[in-house]
Amino acid sequence: MIDPKVVALIAGFISIGFAIYLFTWVMKQSNESEAMAKFSKSIQEGAAAYLKRLFQALGGLAVVIAIIILIAINWQTAFAFIVGATLSALAGYTGMYVSTRANARVAFAARSGLKKAFPVAFYAGGVMGLLVVGIALVGMTVIYWIFKDPNIVLGFSFGASSLALLAKAGGGIYTKTADIGADLVGKVEFDLAEDDPRNPAVIADNVGDNVGDVAGMGADIFDSYVASVVAVMILGWELYGKSPNGEAFVLFPLLLCGVGIIASLIGMLFVRTGEGNDPGRALNTGTIVTTIIIAVVTAGVISLMNIDSANAWTGKWQGWGILLPTVAGLIAGIVIGFTSDAVTDIDQKSVQNTANAAKTGPAILILDGFSYGLLSIVPSIIGICAATIASYYLAQHFGLSGVYGVAIAAVGMLSITGMIVSSDAYGPIVDNAKGCAEAGGESEETIRVCDRLDAAGNTAKAITKGFAIGAAALTVLALFAAYAESVNIQILDLRNPGVIVGLFLGASMPPLFSAMLILSVGRNAFKMVEEIRRQFREIPGVIEGTVPPDSKLCVDIATKGALKELILPGLLSFLAPLAVGFLFGKNALGGFLAGSIVTGIIFALFMANAGGLWDNAKKYIEDGALGGPGSEAHKAAVVGDTVGDPFKDTAGPSLNTLITVMSLAATIFGPLVAKYALFPL
Amino acid sequence: MIDPKVVALIAGFISIGFAIYLFTWVMKQSNESEAMAKFSKSIQEGAAAYLKRLFQALGGLAVVIAIIILIAINWQTAFAFIVGATLSALAGYTGMYVSTRANARVAFAARSGLKKAFPVAFYAGGVMGLLVVGIALVGMTVIYWIFKDPNIVLGFSFGASSLALLAKAGGGIYTKTADIGADLVGKVEFDLAEDDPRNPAVIADNVGDNVGDVAGMGADIFDSYVASVVAVMILGWELYGKSPNGEAFVLFPLLLCGVGIIASLIGMLFVRTGEGNDPGRALNTGTIVTTIIIAVVTAGVISLMNIDSANAWTGKWQGWGILLPTVAGLIAGIVIGFTSDAVTDIDQKSVQNTANAAKTGPAILILDGFSYGLLSIVPSIIGICAATIASYYLAQHFGLSGVYGVAIAAVGMLSITGMIVSSDAYGPIVDNAKGCAEAGGESEETIRVCDRLDAAGNTAKAITKGFAIGAAALTVLALFAAYAESVNIQILDLRNPGVIVGLFLGASMPPLFSAMLILSVGRNAFKMVEEIRRQFREIPGVIEGTVPPDSKLCVDIATKGALKELILPGLLSFLAPLAVGFLFGKNALGGFLAGSIVTGIIFALFMANAGGLWDNAKKYIEDGALGGPGSEAHKAAVVGDTVGDPFKDTAGPSLNTLITVMSLAATIFGPLVAKYALFPL
Repeated sequence: MIDPKVVALIAGFISIGFAIYLFTWVMKQSNESEAMAKFSKSIQEGAAAYLKRLFQALGGLAVVIAIIILIAINWQTAFAFIVGATLSALAGYTGMYVSTRANARVAFAARSGLKKAFPVAFYAGGVMGLLVVGIALVGMTVIYWIFKDPNIVLGFSFGASSLALLAKAGGGIYTKTADIGADLVGKVEFDLAEDDPRNPAVIADNVGDNVGDVAGMGADIFDSYVASVVAVMILGWELYGKSPNGEAFVLFPLLLCGVGIIASLIGMLFVRTGEGNDPGRALNTGTIVTTIIIAVVTAGVISLMNIDSANAWTGKWQGWGILLPTVAGLIAGIVIGFTSDAVTDIDQKSVQNTANAAKTGPAILILDGFSYGLLSIVPSIIGICAATIASYYLAQHFGLSGVYGVAIAAVGMLSITGMIVSSDAYGPIVDNAKGCAEAGGESEETIRVCDRLDAAGNTAKAITKGFAIGAAALTVLALFAAYAESVNIQILDLRNPGVIVGLFLGASMPPLFSAMLILSVGRNAFKMVEEIRRQFREIPGVIEGTVPPDSKLCVDIATKGALKELILPGLLSFLAPLAVGFLFGKNALGGFLAGSIVTGIIFALFMANAGGLWDNAKKYIEDGALGGPGSEAHKAAVVGDTVGDPFKDTAGPSLNTLITVMSLAATIFGPLVAKYALFPL
Repeated sequence: MIDPKVVALIAGFISIGFAIYLFTWVMKQSNESEAMAKFSKSIQEGAAAYLKRLFQALGGLAVVIAIIILIAINWQTAFAFIVGATLSALAGYTGMYVSTRANARVAFAARSGLKKAFPVAFYAGGVMGLLVVGIALVGMTVIYWIFKDPNIVLGFSFGASSLALLAKAGGGIYTKTADIGADLVGKVEFDLAEDDPRNPAVIADNVGDNVGDVAGMGADIFDSYVASVVAVMILGWELYGKSPNGEAFVLFPLLLCGVGIIASLIGMLFVRTGEGNDPGRALNTGTIVTTIIIAVVTAGVISLMNIDSANAWTGKWQGWGILLPTVAGLIAGIVIGFTSDAVTDIDQKSVQNTANAAKTGPAILILDGFSYGLLSIVPSIIGICAATIASYYLAQHFGLSGVYGVAIAAVGMLSITGMIVSSDAYGPIVDNAKGCAEAGGESEETIRVCDRLDAAGNTAKAITKGFAIGAAALTVLALFAAYAESVNIQILDLRNPGVIVGLFLGASMPPLFSAMLILSVGRNAFKMVEEIRRQFREIPGVIEGTVPPDSKLCVDIATKGALKELILPGLLSFLAPLAVGFLFGKNALGGFLAGSIVTGIIFALFMANAGGLWDNAKKYIEDGALGGPGSEAHKAAVVGDTVGDPFKDTAGPSLNTLITVMSLAATIFGPLVAKYALFPL
C-alpha cells in the first residue's frame, strides 16, 4: 500500500507547482496603460508596506508566544507554532503579491472583452487558492512525518490560527477604515464616484481590499483548513492510535486533502466563460465539479486505506463510517454557502423590503436589515445541526466514534478549499481592476466589463463567507471534542454551575470581540474623515483634480490605526480562555468553549448576512429602484451600507477565527489547566 | 410555629389593601384643567380599548392551551393555568387603569411644584407595585394550599408567563409603532414638538406608554416573581419533600415574599422629596431601605422556620445556606440594576463618544451605540455568574443543594419587587403627565416640573430593566434545574450531539424572536407614517391646529397591528421547545433551554443598553452639545434613537419572558417529552 503521507506531499507540491505556473502566466499578461500601472503601483506599495509592518509586529508576538509554549509545553510544539505562523503569513502575503499585480492586467485585458479578462482574474485568484492548500498540506505532513505526533501538529495549527486572527482582524480594520472614510467624505459630502482619483483615501481603500479580503481571507482559510485536519488527527490518535492499522485514522485527512487538491485542479479547468455568459455561473460550475470528483475519489481512497475490513464487533464496513460523513460535510458546505448567498440576494424579498424602508429614512432600513440578518441565521444553523447529527450517527452506525465522524465532515467540507479560495480571491482582484480602470480613465465599455466581472465576485464572496462559517462550526465542534479528550473530560455536565458560568462567559466573548473591532473601525474612520476633509480644504487644487492628493497620509492612518487597534482584542482572545481555565478549571473552560462556539457562529452569520443585505439594498436602489442614485432613499441606503461594512468585512469574518484560536489554545494548554487551576468548579 | 402560608396570605392582603388605599387617595387628587382631562380621557379610552381586545384574543388562546394541558396533564394544572393568566392580566389592567387616571392629576399638581406632584405620581405607581406582588402572593399561596403540590403552582406560573409574554410583546409593538410613527413625521418632517396635539399619533403614543410600560411591565414582573417562587417550590419538593420538616423548603419563598412586601411598604415611606431635591434619589433611597430590611428580617424568619437545626451530616447551621444566597441575590440585583444605569448614563464616555460620532452622520453613531451595547453586557454577565457561583456554593457549603441556593437567590433578588415596580410604574405616569401638560397648554414652569419628574423616571426605568434581566437569569437557571429534575436528567452532557444541537437551536430562538418583533414594529410604523402624512395632506386645518386630527384612526392602526403581529412570534415561543422536545428528546430539550437562556440574557442586555445609550446620546445633544437641537448631529442622533426604540422597548424586554415561558413549557411537558420523543438523541 502507498503511504498516505507520500500522496499528501505529492499533491501538495503539485498544487504549489501549478500555483507558480499560474503566477508566471498572469505576470506575462500585458498592461500598456501607464495611468493604470501607476495606480496599481501605489496599491502594491501601500499593501506591501502594511503587511511588512503587520508581520514585523506579529513576528515579535509570535516569538513571545513561542517562548511561553517552549517553557510550558515543549520545544517541538513551539517550533511547529513558528512554522505554522510563518507559512500562514506566507500564503497570505503571496496571494496579496499576485492580486495587487493582477488588477491592472485584468483591467487592460477588459479592453478586449470579458472572455479575455476573466481568466486573468480567475487564475490570479487561483495562485492564492492553490498556494493556501499546497503550503498547508505540505507543512502539516512534514511536521507529522518528523515528530510522529498529532499534538505537535496542533502547535502548527495554533500558529497558523493566531496569525490568521490578527491578519484578518487587522486587515478588516484597515479596509473598512479606508472604505468608510472615503465614502463618507467623497460620496456623501462631495458627490465623487467610488474610485475617483481626487479622493485622497482611494488608494488606501484599494489597498484595504487586498490586505483585508486577499491576505486576511487567505490566512483565515489556511487556518480553518489546518485546524479541521488537526482535529481529526488528534481524535484518530486518541481513539484509535493503539488499534492495529490505527494510523490510518490519523492519516486519512491528509489523504482527503490531497484528493481535494487534485479535484480542485480539475474543477478549475471547468471554469470558463464566453462573452455573453455570466462569470458567476462559471465559478459555481467549478465548485460543483470539484465536489463531485472528491466524493467519488474518496470512496476509492478509503478502500485503499485498509479501513475497509468489516468491523469485528458490528460486522459492518467501517469505510462507510468515513465516506458518508465526508459526503455529509461536502453537501452541507455547498448548501450553507448557497443559502447565505440566497438570503442576501438582490432579488430576495428581504433585500427589497429593506430597500423599501429607505422611503422613511435610514432608521427603519437599519432595523429591517438588522432583523433579516438575525432571521437569516436559522437556515444555516439548521444546516450545521443536520450535518453534525448526520455525521455523528453515520460514523457511529458503522462502528466508529461519533465525534470522529463530525471531525471528518469538517475536513470533507474543507476539502474543496482550493477551488473556493480561488473563486474568492477573484473578488477583490476584479474589484481593484475596476478601480484601475476608473483611475486610468478607461472607456465606458471597459468599465462595464469590469463591472460584470465584479458582480460575479460579490456572489463568490457571499458563498465563501457562508462556507467558511459552516466549516468553522464543524471544525470547532471537532476541536471541542479534541479538547475534551486532551483533558480527559468524559462528561461535561450542564448541571455543573462551573460549566454554566463558563458557558455564559464564553458566549460573551464573540460579542465583546466584535464590539472592540467595530469601535476600532469607527475611531479610525473618524480620523480618516478628518484627514480627507483637511486635504480638500487646505491643499488647493485637490478637489479640482489639478493637484494629486496626498494618498500616503491616508494609507498611513489606516496602517497605524489597524496595528494599534489590534492589540486589545488580540490579547483578549489569547488570555480569556486561559484566564477562565486557570481560574475555574477544565470544566468551566469546556463550557467557555461551547458558549463561544454558539454565539460565535450566530454572530458571524448575522453580521455577514446583515452586511450583505444592506449592501445589496443599496445596489437595488442604485439600479434605479425608489428614485435611484442621489434620491433620499439612496442616502438612507448608504447609511445602511456603511453600518454593514464593518459587520461583514471586519467583525463577522474574524469570529470564526476567534473561536478556532480559543479552541486551539484551550486544547494546547488544557493539560496544564487540568493540573494547576486555582478554584476548579 | 406560625404557618408560613398564613403569613404569606396576610402580607398579600395587606399589600392589596394598601394598594386600594393608595388608589382612592390618588383618585381624590384634583385636576381642574379641562384640556388636560380631555387629553387624559382619550388616553384612557385608547388604552382600555386596546387591552380589552388584547385580553379577548388572549382569553381565547388561554382556553385553547388550558384544554391542551387538561388533556395532556391534568385538570388541576389547567385550572391553575387559567387562574395565573387571569391574575397576571388583572395586575396589568389595574396598573394601567390607575396610571391613565393619574397622569392629568400629576400634571395639575405640578402647578403647585415638585413636592406636591411627586407623591401623586409615586403613589399611583405604588398601586401597581403593591397589586402585582399582593395578587401574585395570594394566588400562589391559595393554589398551593388547595392542591398541596408545587407542580400545580407551576401551571399557575405558566399561565402568568404566557399572558405576560404576549402582553409585553404586544404592548411593545404598540408603543413603538406609535412612537416611531409620531416622531418620523411629526419631529423630522414637520418640526413639531414631542407631544404636539396637532400630531394625529400623539394619543396613540401616550396610550402606548401605558399599555407597553405599565400593563406590559406589570404582567412581566408578575411572571418573573411567580416563576422564581415556583422554581424554589419545585426544587424544595423534589430535593427535600420527603425529609422531616421538608415542607419548610417548599414554603420558604412564600414567606420571603411576604417579608419583601412588608419591607417594600416601609421602604415606600422613605420615598420623599423636597422642592430642590432630585426625585431620582428619593426612589433609590426607597430601594436601598427595602433591601436592608429584607436582609435583616429574613435572618429572623429563617430561625423561626425550623431550618435552623445543625445538619446531622455536616454539623453546620443550614439556615446560613438559605440566608446567604438570599443576600447574594439581593446584592446582585442591586448591583446589576445600578450597573445598567451607569452604562447608559448621559455622563458616561460611551454616551458622549456615541454622540460625538453624530458629527459624521448616523452611520458611525449607530455602529458605536451597537458596539457599546455589546460591551455593556460584560459587567452584568459577570454579576450573574458571581451570584450563581456564590449562591450555589454557599448553599452547598451549609449542607444544602447548590441549585436550591441559586433558586433562592432569584427569589431574594425579586423580593424587593414591590418597591421596584412602584418606581418603575412611576416612569410612564410622569411621562404621560408631561404629555398632558403640553397638550393642556400649561405654563412653562409646570412643564419644567414635569420634565424633572420625567428625568427621574428614566433612571428608575434603566435600573428596573437591568434588575429584571438579572432576576430572570437566576430564575431561568433555577427553572432549568427544575426541568432537569422533572424529567430525571442527572447529567446533561455537552459531549452528546443531541445536547449540542439543542444548544444551537435554542440559542437561535432569542435572535429569531427579536427579529420578528422588530420587523413587526417596522411594518406597523410604516403604516402609521403613511396615515399621519395622509391626515396632514388631506384634512385641511390639521397642520394649522384649527381642526383636531383623527387620533382614533392612529390608535386603531397601532391596536390592530400589534394584535396581528403577535400571532407568529407567540406561536413560535410555545411550539419551538415542544417541537425540539418531541422530536429529539429530553436531552436535546435541555440543551435547547441552556442555549436560549444564554443568548436570551445576552440579547436582552445588549438591546436594553444599546437602546438606552442612543436615547441618552440624543438627549446629550438636545441638552446643547454638538450644536444642539436642529443641528445635523441632532438629526443623526434621532436616527440612532429610532433604531434603539424597538431594541429597548419591544424586543429586549420581551426576551426574559420568552426564556421563562420556554423553560416553564419544557418543565410542564417534560415528562411527556421523556416518554414520547420520536428520535431521542
